Amino acid sequence: MKVLQVELDQGRGYPIYIGSGLLAQPELLTRHIRSKQVVVVTNETIAPLYLSALQATLSAYQLETVVLPDGEQYKTLQYLEKIFDHLLAKKFSRNSTLIALGGGVIGDMGGFAAACYQRGIAFVQIPTTLLAQVDSSVGGKTGVNHPLGKNMIGAFYQPQCVIADADVLDTLDDRQLSAGLAEVIKYGLIRDPEFLQWLEANMPLLIARDKAALAYAIERSCANKAAVVGEDEFESGVRATLNLGHTFGHAIETGSGYGHYLHGEAVAIGTCFAADLSRRLGWLNDKDVERIVALFKAARLPVTPPADMTPEQYVDLMAVDKKNVDGKIRVILLKQVGKASLPVNVDLDPLQATLKGYVG
Amino acid sequence: MKVLQVELDQGRGYPIYIGSGLLAQPELLTRHIRSKQVVVVTNETIAPLYLSALQATLSAYQLETVVLPDGEQYKTLQYLEKIFDHLLAKKFSRNSTLIALGGGVIGDMGGFAAACYQRGIAFVQIPTTLLAQVDSSVGGKTGVNHPLGKNMIGAFYQPQCVIADADVLDTLDDRQLSAGLAEVIKYGLIRDPEFLQWLEANMPLLIARDKAALAYAIERSCANKAAVVGEDEFESGVRATLNLGHTFGHAIETGSGYGHYLHGEAVAIGTCFAADLSRRLGWLNDKDVERIVALFKAARLPVTPPADMTPEQYVDLMAVDKKNVDGKIRVILLKQVGKASLPVNVDLDPLQATLKGYVG
Repeated sequence: MKVLQVELDQGRGYPIYIGSGLLAQPELLTRHIRSKQVVVVTNETIAPLYLSALQATLSAYQLETVVLPDGEQYKTLQYLEKIFDHLLAKKFSRNSTLIALGGGVIGDMGGFAAACYQRGIAFVQIPTTLLAQVDSSVGGKTGVNHPLGKNMIGAFYQPQCVIADADVLDTLDDRQLSAGLAEVIKYGLIRDPEFLQWLEANMPLLIARDKAALAYAIERSCANKAAVVGEDEFESGVRATLNLGHTFGHAIETGSGYGHYLHGEAVAIGTCFAADLSRRLGWLNDKDVERIVALFKAARLPVTPPADMTPEQYVDLMAVDKKNVDGKIRVILLKQVGKASLPVNVDLDPLQATLKGYVG
Repeated sequence: MKVLQVELDQGRGYPIYIGSGLLAQPELLTRHIRSKQVVVVTNETIAPLYLSALQATLSAYQLETVVLPDGEQYKTLQYLEKIFDHLLAKKFSRNSTLIALGGGVIGDMGGFAAACYQRGIAFVQIPTTLLAQVDSSVGGKTGVNHPLGKNMIGAFYQPQCVIADADVLDTLDDRQLSAGLAEVIKYGLIRDPEFLQWLEANMPLLIARDKAALAYAIERSCANKAAVVGEDEFESGVRATLNLGHTFGHAIETGSGYGHYLHGEAVAIGTCFAADLSRRLGWLNDKDVERIVALFKAARLPVTPPADMTPEQYVDLMAVDKKNVDGKIRVILLKQVGKASLPVNVDLDPLQATLKGYVG
């Protein structure tokens, strides 16, 4: 087992445990629970697979479970309220603990529920998808979607710990595995060119679910994420680079209806857009863009935007991105392969050129 | 004008401006707004009185207004979502500013909306009731109610400043004025016995809306509140004493249907309960309790509990209070007149004795 520490001010730092067989080690979890009342928030896909093991581990606690439907389309205030309903019906106190057992949607919603319930209760992340293990479970971004924009309602709220057990990936379908690889590739593109080369060489092993390769990819991704978050917890600077591809990606997710694309799939397409736009600004050349597109293809990810979205629709949806200032659209681009820009105001001309011209 | 500073860590401290004619001084407000986009959240009672003046002050900004219905029964996730709908429809950025113009309900909801919108935007409190000026606008507690419990969903989120203009009290009805006095009396009871004596001597002046007396009461109340919050922002200790009367009071508000009692009215009755229970534990004597009840009566506040609530209903509702630990009921009581206890676990016997025996 590897232990990475997310270094934050005021005792808000926490460990990420990465390895195999971690869910069979109850003390990893229980050392972070200081209450009698514990609630597990999970979904209908994950519950049949891992809930009973977790319940056995936590048999000494007053344990409750909230099982939500599976999918980005349920990451809403309405479903968030169901968690509150359950906690209040069971008279859960402010010193209770919430465990999010699932992928990015469950982690984001569980974390936001923990942030808001009685103005904040303790919270543990047990991510069960590759995407959640390498990205969304680390760093304290929590929240829900709004029909007009992704992750528009939320909080920065850090967990007590993250338990990333690589064994749970055995039950992950291929599409979900690839979606996670989109965020893994992101770290290479924005700040870790050596890792990017490793990914290009080892993508066939990752796709074939080679355990050692996956473990290394998770660990190196979490190390990148922890470093960025430790430097800029509340996204006043460098943390925004983690949003490479996300402004376009969120527009695709919102525009095509939450749940149609997996988040990682939309990010893959969005990163190709960002690469294309970086090329139009003279920061990347044609070969760089081809290299990036090829790596997403090797990860079995889509690189072609949805046929039915218009440039106007993208511009409209991107106008509510969290990086925007006073209504101006700002995106993360690539200064070179392996180095992200900070948020840049984009002029409508090159943006429109990419939105019309990039075809995957 | 008086300026009180709330002293908090990490640059989260802020000023409370107290005085007359403050709404006619635009620079008090604009010095705290660093964005182009500004939204005012207010309600149907306040909007006709003060909104146009504020709009004139802020004519240089991209100004939007959200007008909610007036009353505690609208302090819900559903009405909170209306604020998000509006902000997203107008493409408000993360660097926009939200101004809460209203009483405690508007301040709590506006503050919580600011805390959650894009994971946090800047926020200014302009309290328009006595209760909001002396209590709820200061200290960063924000949130909404749930059918099963008051203020159960929320965040600690501090404003950029609080502007308490005593002139707005001219338009406050007598019932609202008295409700505010309940929280003023609270400061005397929990930590400021000298102020309590002053209140006993000057209650007729306050009821008669004497400007100087009201200004002094607001200032001394805010000074008490700022001192407690500065010492314990996140309520891990002494801040809980501000909840004197609130555990009973919240049960009354929830049990009788939000909007039936004003918050301050329920707190007045709840504080009489707390005084009665303190007497049963031997901390107060009969004269102390009579003195407390008499002061609430002098402030024209109710001291008699609702006829239709049963002791069982109180116990059930109090079981979800935020001070509870692992499901045990904890309340703030009085060690003596002018000195609150920290949260104490209450045994069911003396609690039931108070719930059955206290009749106002």
